[in-house]
Amino acid sequence: MHPPVVLLRSFLGLGLACGVLVGAACSGSKSSSGPTGGAASSSLTDLMKARNLSEADVNAALKTYTPSGRMDEYLTFASGGHGGQVIVIGVPSMRILKYIAVFTPEPWQGYGFDDQTKSVLAGGKRFAKDLTWADTHHPALSETGGDYDGQFLFINDKANARIAVIDLKDFTTKQIVTSELIGGDHGAAFVTPNTDYVIETTQYPVPFGSTYADPAKEFKEKFRGAAIFWKFDRTKGRIDKEASFAIEFPPYTQDLADAGKLVSDGYVFFNSINTELTWGGNQEGNPPMESGYSKNDMDYLHVVNWKKAAELINAGKGEMINGIRVLRLPTSIAEHVLTFVPESKSPHGVDVSPDGQDIVISGKLDTHGTVFSFAKIKAQIDAGKFETKDSYGVPVLSFKDSIRGQVELGLGPLHSQFDDKGNVYTSLFLETVVVKWSLKDLKVIDKLPTHYNIGHLVAAEGDTIHPDGKYLIAMNKWALDRFNKVGPLLPQNFQLVDIGGEKMQLLYDMPLPLGEPHYAQMIKADKLKPVDVYTPGEDPITGVVSPNVVEANKERVERKADGVHVYMTAIRSHFTPDIIRVKEGDTVKLHVDNIEQAYDATHGFAIDSYNINLSLEPGEHSDVTFVADRAGVFPMYCTEFCSALHLEMAGYLLVEPK
Amino acid sequence: MHPPVVLLRSFLGLGLACGVLVGAACSGSKSSSGPTGGAASSSLTDLMKARNLSEADVNAALKTYTPSGRMDEYLTFASGGHGGQVIVIGVPSMRILKYIAVFTPEPWQGYGFDDQTKSVLAGGKRFAKDLTWADTHHPALSETGGDYDGQFLFINDKANARIAVIDLKDFTTKQIVTSELIGGDHGAAFVTPNTDYVIETTQYPVPFGSTYADPAKEFKEKFRGAAIFWKFDRTKGRIDKEASFAIEFPPYTQDLADAGKLVSDGYVFFNSINTELTWGGNQEGNPPMESGYSKNDMDYLHVVNWKKAAELINAGKGEMINGIRVLRLPTSIAEHVLTFVPESKSPHGVDVSPDGQDIVISGKLDTHGTVFSFAKIKAQIDAGKFETKDSYGVPVLSFKDSIRGQVELGLGPLHSQFDDKGNVYTSLFLETVVVKWSLKDLKVIDKLPTHYNIGHLVAAEGDTIHPDGKYLIAMNKWALDRFNKVGPLLPQNFQLVDIGGEKMQLLYDMPLPLGEPHYAQMIKADKLKPVDVYTPGEDPITGVVSPNVVEANKERVERKADGVHVYMTAIRSHFTPDIIRVKEGDTVKLHVDNIEQAYDATHGFAIDSYNINLSLEPGEHSDVTFVADRAGVFPMYCTEFCSALHLEMAGYLLVEPK
Repeated sequence: MHPPVVLLRSFLGLGLACGVLVGAACSGSKSSSGPTGGAASSSLTDLMKARNLSEADVNAALKTYTPSGRMDEYLTFASGGHGGQVIVIGVPSMRILKYIAVFTPEPWQGYGFDDQTKSVLAGGKRFAKDLTWADTHHPALSETGGDYDGQFLFINDKANARIAVIDLKDFTTKQIVTSELIGGDHGAAFVTPNTDYVIETTQYPVPFGSTYADPAKEFKEKFRGAAIFWKFDRTKGRIDKEASFAIEFPPYTQDLADAGKLVSDGYVFFNSINTELTWGGNQEGNPPMESGYSKNDMDYLHVVNWKKAAELINAGKGEMINGIRVLRLPTSIAEHVLTFVPESKSPHGVDVSPDGQDIVISGKLDTHGTVFSFAKIKAQIDAGKFETKDSYGVPVLSFKDSIRGQVELGLGPLHSQFDDKGNVYTSLFLETVVVKWSLKDLKVIDKLPTHYNIGHLVAAEGDTIHPDGKYLIAMNKWALDRFNKVGPLLPQNFQLVDIGGEKMQLLYDMPLPLGEPHYAQMIKADKLKPVDVYTPGEDPITGVVSPNVVEANKERVERKADGVHVYMTAIRSHFTPDIIRVKEGDTVKLHVDNIEQAYDATHGFAIDSYNINLSLEPGEHSDVTFVADRAGVFPMYCTEFCSALHLEMAGYLLVEPK
Repeated sequence: MHPPVVLLRSFLGLGLACGVLVGAACSGSKSSSGPTGGAASSSLTDLMKARNLSEADVNAALKTYTPSGRMDEYLTFASGGHGGQVIVIGVPSMRILKYIAVFTPEPWQGYGFDDQTKSVLAGGKRFAKDLTWADTHHPALSETGGDYDGQFLFINDKANARIAVIDLKDFTTKQIVTSELIGGDHGAAFVTPNTDYVIETTQYPVPFGSTYADPAKEFKEKFRGAAIFWKFDRTKGRIDKEASFAIEFPPYTQDLADAGKLVSDGYVFFNSINTELTWGGNQEGNPPMESGYSKNDMDYLHVVNWKKAAELINAGKGEMINGIRVLRLPTSIAEHVLTFVPESKSPHGVDVSPDGQDIVISGKLDTHGTVFSFAKIKAQIDAGKFETKDSYGVPVLSFKDSIRGQVELGLGPLHSQFDDKGNVYTSLFLETVVVKWSLKDLKVIDKLPTHYNIGHLVAAEGDTIHPDGKYLIAMNKWALDRFNKVGPLLPQNFQLVDIGGEKMQLLYDMPLPLGEPHYAQMIKADKLKPVDVYTPGEDPITGVVSPNVVEANKERVERKADGVHVYMTAIRSHFTPDIIRVKEGDTVKLHVDNIEQAYDATHGFAIDSYNINLSLEPGEHSDVTFVADRAGVFPMYCTEFCSALHLEMAGYLLVEPK
């Protein structure tokens, strides 16, 4: 490294342009061409001038730029909204490392194209219908003792009431579950502190099982909300549907949820935003939904004792509805499983503090952050001290006796995250800022403008009992003038914020090129230990060696009762066999192994015009079944540029006419 | 901006840590927390130390970091490989701005979910089969007079021989075409200098129409390659299938193509890599394809006079096969439409120089770059001076008499790009470097290592008659240790290189999170003029106001012979109507208009469990047809977070049982 002997003068405008900070030899600025200049000839000030960078820009650049081969400190897992996937982002570089296919078929990963992943997607059928998209909202990392453990990620589909399980061993989706009990969810996915349960809560209520009822006549009686507690079997890495259960709710529009931790472990807190029981009908003489939703000044925080609920369910107190055990409202009321606390008008986020003692809620049409005290809530429940009941008979606590205090935050507060110093960061959608405030003192410390209209925000390890501080991402819903124009559909804008100091500092604007993220989780990168390659012959969905594994030199074709079985291998630079001969009408079952064990030695396998497309990671076994219903000659080839002889990794499917 | 009075000493290690380069007030490093430090307290050297940045890193950071709200200078359009999409990247920030859905259904964009985009995808059916993926390889920007004009983008599907047309007015796919004449393509898409034609060339030969033939017996006789010249109608913005034609080729594995320009306008050049006529059969006693392909020392550059071919076709000299006019081999030979020139063993890229005079080709198993002279080739053709014929009777020129010279480049040369100073940049896959060399002098100037195994590369405006220099992206096929681990399937690595100076400088490593790009186009951003919003009621696929347009206060439901027509509008924060009442078994036709004209005011429209999901940009009209085959209550809602009252933008589809 050369000392910047000339930099100071250059920076001060003394005209000595031959800066040496950023290059090896002082070859002069004469060879500089264009605004970016040559490789070895630009001084810091030249560069700042050429690219119109302020000192704050330089600071931000150096806090985020990640040189070739250097790793990011955190990984962020963001939902992809109605793209139906999960987005993995490195922090602080804000480079997207992977889109994980979850609910939507995705050919680069071969997801939804082989028998294995087709069966994963089939787990998400509803009423026997294939669903080829999802509205992913809230990813949840698995936790052990309230801290992220880096093992699994769960995510919901708001549109179709589904939950997916992603194994972070290989960053792939292993399971999709749904219950036809409810129609859609929003308060999902959230985990209990040891990932015993994955929580999924209704948003728009329907009659259980989506059976027909006219809301104009039977909304209050027949429509219902529910929270489903999906039992997670960590050993198997799968949700156990049989061991799962649901809790019936009144047909308020339940919103987000958060599980208690430490002192509040065993409880979970849900917001609701339509205690008015509005159901629409703006062409049937009713006001639009949004005005109906906003009539009452208070809605109900749902406080649920899930450990008690689980006990009651396991004691047979549930009722089987649509294939799941449901704890009905009367039981929940009688056993104090469900208690309401009034909360400010139309709340959105509910966030439990790292110590588990406080619950931070903001009514989006109120300007305050309200801090509820778990101790105060618990004391009232334990004492049976209820102020009133709602119209379904659910006991309601006193608002005044349940809160520790309120703080004036600003316009449109939505969600809150925490740092390691007792501060809260709340998004203000309408004011379009992040507000930082002290949880202890209930005082605002700083506000940072965002661009524009921040929805969720996520802080490093921000949902755990040990948040890291350091970084926060503002997840903005509008982008407007932030990026080059790319047509009427714009990217969202994630803004990385340095929260290491007293004042927040905006570091980076990151466009989201696909999907509309809602929420995210940010985890220390060194907690993740993904595998480099699969065990030879491994089926990634079962996690064990496939019974159809194909080893080198054992490639073969076998005609069986259920079809023509082709046992193939892939290795640089050929498939064996590279010619598949079948007859028109044959059912063909391809069993393909990538027999490489070199890291990154992925092969693809495609058959032209047959919609067949596999991604075979090193060691991976894959099966695909199809009917050779079109006679002719169809090239097949490796779709992943795997070696200098990649184009030669090809062959033909020959389908002889009947 | 504060003068860096302390920076020099700080940088020199004098321990005066209170740097002021990068903050407003000198609040001291005491408040700094963690390696990134506080917002206003880090000096340049502190930051460099904390993040282990070299001077070259700082230089690269400042050349790429793009502050909030600042635009990128170039946009790069990269193919997404077997993801089936196009990726739009800002340069120099290397932020991905958009994934454009092309061949693969994509729900965030509502692509493949409404009647309009379903019909686009239906244009790409082959043998009546739906295809839900593609292997996109080579995007081509439309050109006027040999320069990018920023109007259209074309891209191929290698697996299924398809071409898509993307309108850069709104960055959406408007048309997909295919010809069942050929089985797959690779030398596509490439345009002629005024975008009269989009060129698509076979890779793996099949009998025309993919009809059955046994390659063991009839490869030479029945299998064929072809180049399709798709006629582009710029006024309509669509390919005119009727006006398109094909040229028959021998069943060599044709590879990439490039159209002549300026002096060589009217010609197009295609590589080929299997003049050995290998077809596989490694379990039928034949050697693997890759060794068969590499037997001959020379393959054939195909020189095609496309203007003459078009004249012959228009004069009725073609033969209609599989719905397209084909210029058969004997005619091409007789009329000198097709001429061969020997080229080095297994070439991959063929690239015409900006002045149109030279054709740069590298045999990937040769270490040279070979510069063919168009003038020399043309002179021989005009003189009828052929050295020999291939076994199909195609005249072959003398290699020696066709080249201007050769330059020793290194191991595994693939593709070449050009700058504004007469230099060529060639990717060396095996050596894993970019080599810069002088086209005039045929001398190597510089080599830059890449990480790892570079395939294509793309330079700013690099395929035009006026390349810009400045930037080059190395499109690497392996990533290995470059990024945080995300499981066995790794991102690719795009490396941005500053080519403004004599020596190349690596600026940035960018992971590709979805898809495996092959080639790209880099265009000056100010050439693109996309619209902000649609004309009210516009159908994006027809480009005009829909006959089903719905205006505010004209929302209605009409029962017609073909189904229940629901005319809806969407505006913050409700749909009208918000309750849809139909009967079980009804065919439902939704006509939905986003009646907003505010930039970025996108709404989504989803119906739970019915797999219905639209993205409605401001002004957009969309139709969706479905059968209400399941009775019950199904929430419908806006999937795009559009306002503080977004969650309230909802309603129900009520399907009354029969």
